[in-house]
Amino acid sequence: MVDSEARRTPRRSDARRNRDMLIAAAREIYAERGVDASLDEIARRADVGNATLYRHFRDRADLIETVFHDALVPILDMGREIRDHPDAWHGLTAYLDRIFALLAVDRGAGDLLTTTIQGVPTLDVLREENHRTLEILLRRGREQRTVRADLTIEDLLFLLAALGRAASAAPANWRRHLALLLDGLRPATARPLPVPTLRPEQFDAALHGLGTAPQTPRRREPHPGPSTSENPTS
Amino acid sequence: MVDSEARRTPRRSDARRNRDMLIAAAREIYAERGVDASLDEIARRADVGNATLYRHFRDRADLIETVFHDALVPILDMGREIRDHPDAWHGLTAYLDRIFALLAVDRGAGDLLTTTIQGVPTLDVLREENHRTLEILLRRGREQRTVRADLTIEDLLFLLAALGRAASAAPANWRRHLALLLDGLRPATARPLPVPTLRPEQFDAALHGLGTAPQTPRRREPHPGPSTSENPTS
Repeated sequence: MVDSEARRTPRRSDARRNRDMLIAAAREIYAERGVDASLDEIARRADVGNATLYRHFRDRADLIETVFHDALVPILDMGREIRDHPDAWHGLTAYLDRIFALLAVDRGAGDLLTTTIQGVPTLDVLREENHRTLEILLRRGREQRTVRADLTIEDLLFLLAALGRAASAAPANWRRHLALLLDGLRPATARPLPVPTLRPEQFDAALHGLGTAPQTPRRREPHPGPSTSENPTS
Repeated sequence: MVDSEARRTPRRSDARRNRDMLIAAAREIYAERGVDASLDEIARRADVGNATLYRHFRDRADLIETVFHDALVPILDMGREIRDHPDAWHGLTAYLDRIFALLAVDRGAGDLLTTTIQGVPTLDVLREENHRTLEILLRRGREQRTVRADLTIEDLLFLLAALGRAASAAPANWRRHLALLLDGLRPATARPLPVPTLRPEQFDAALHGLGTAPQTPRRREPHPGPSTSENPTS
C-alpha cells in the first residue's frame, strides 16, 4: 500500500503539473497569435507530447473552454448587471471598456468574436448574453436619446467586432479609437445613413468574414496531416 | 523562314494566353481570399505549371504589381485631384467612397492596406500618396471646421484600415458602416479623447498588427516546402 501510494502521488502531481503547463502554454500562444494556433505547437511549448495533451483535453474546443472560461465569465456577469444602469450610455461605454481591455491584450479573445467553435459552452453563453446586453443598452440609449435612433444592433455588433479585432494591434490606443467610433453613435451629429443595415440573417456570415481568412477554398487541398488539421484557416 | 515563323506564332500566342490566364486566376483568387494565396494555387487555377508562372512573373511581388496596377492607379490619381476640392469634407468622403468600393469586392486590396510587400512599385507610390491625400484633406477639414480638431492622421489611417479590412465581410452595407464612423470624426459631437494618438513611429507596427496573423512564431517551424513558402502567414 505504501509503495503503490508513493508511486501514485508523484504520478498525480506530474499529471497536475502537465495540465497546468498545457493551460499556461495555450493561454500564452492564444493571446499572442489567436486560437488558430495548432495543438502541436501548444504541446511543444508546454514540453509534453501530443498524447499527454489529449489525455487532459478531449479536443481543441475543450482546451479553449478551459483557457477562456475565467476571462469570459466576469464579462458575462458584468453585462447582466449593467443592463439596468440608469444611464444606458454610461452602461454601454463601461461594458465596452471592459471587453476591449481584454481584446487589447489577447488576440485569441478577438478571434472568439468572429469564429464559431462547436463545443465551447462558455462562448455560446457569452455570445448570447453579449447580444442581449447590447440590445438592451441600445434600446434604452435610444429611448434616453443618448444613442442615435437609426443605429441597429447589427450595426453595433459589426462595428464593435471590426474595431475589437483591431484593438490588439494598438494596445495603448484602443480607448481613443473606441471613443472616436462611439462619438459617431450619438444623436447630435447623426446624418441620414445611406444604405440599409445588415439583416439578422446576413449577420453571422458577415461576422465570420471578419475572421482571418475564408475557409472553403482550403478544403480543396490535400489533407496535410494532424498538425495542420487543427488549423483549417491557416 | 515560313516554317520557323509558323512555329513561332502559335508559341507566342500560347505564351500570351498563359499569361492572361495567370493574371485572371490571380485576380480571382486574390479577390476571394487575399494576397496570401500561394503561387501554386494560382498556377493550378490557371491550368499551367509552376515553371510557366515563373517564366512570366519574376516573383510574387511581380504578379501582385501586375494584378493590382490597373485598380490602384485610378485611386491614386483621384486622390491627387481631390486634395484641392473646395469642401475638404466632401473630398474626404468621395475619396473614401472610391477606396471602400474596391475593398468591398476585393479581399486582396484589403490585405494591401496592412501588408508590406517589397518590390510592388505601384503599392509604394499608392501608400505614400494616400497618406498625403488624407493628411491634406484632414488639415483642410480641420481648418474648415468640418473635421474635429483632435483627430490625427494616425487615428484616421488606423480606423480606416480596421474598417476597410471589414468592408469585404459586408459588401452591401459598408457605406452605412463608413458613414457611422465618419459621423464620429465631425466636430459637433466631439468629446475629449481619453488617451494619446499612435505616434508616427508606432503606426507601421500597428497597421501590420491588423493583418491576418503575426508572422514571427511561424518561422520557428520547419520549412514545409515551396508551396507554403509563398505564404508565410498562413
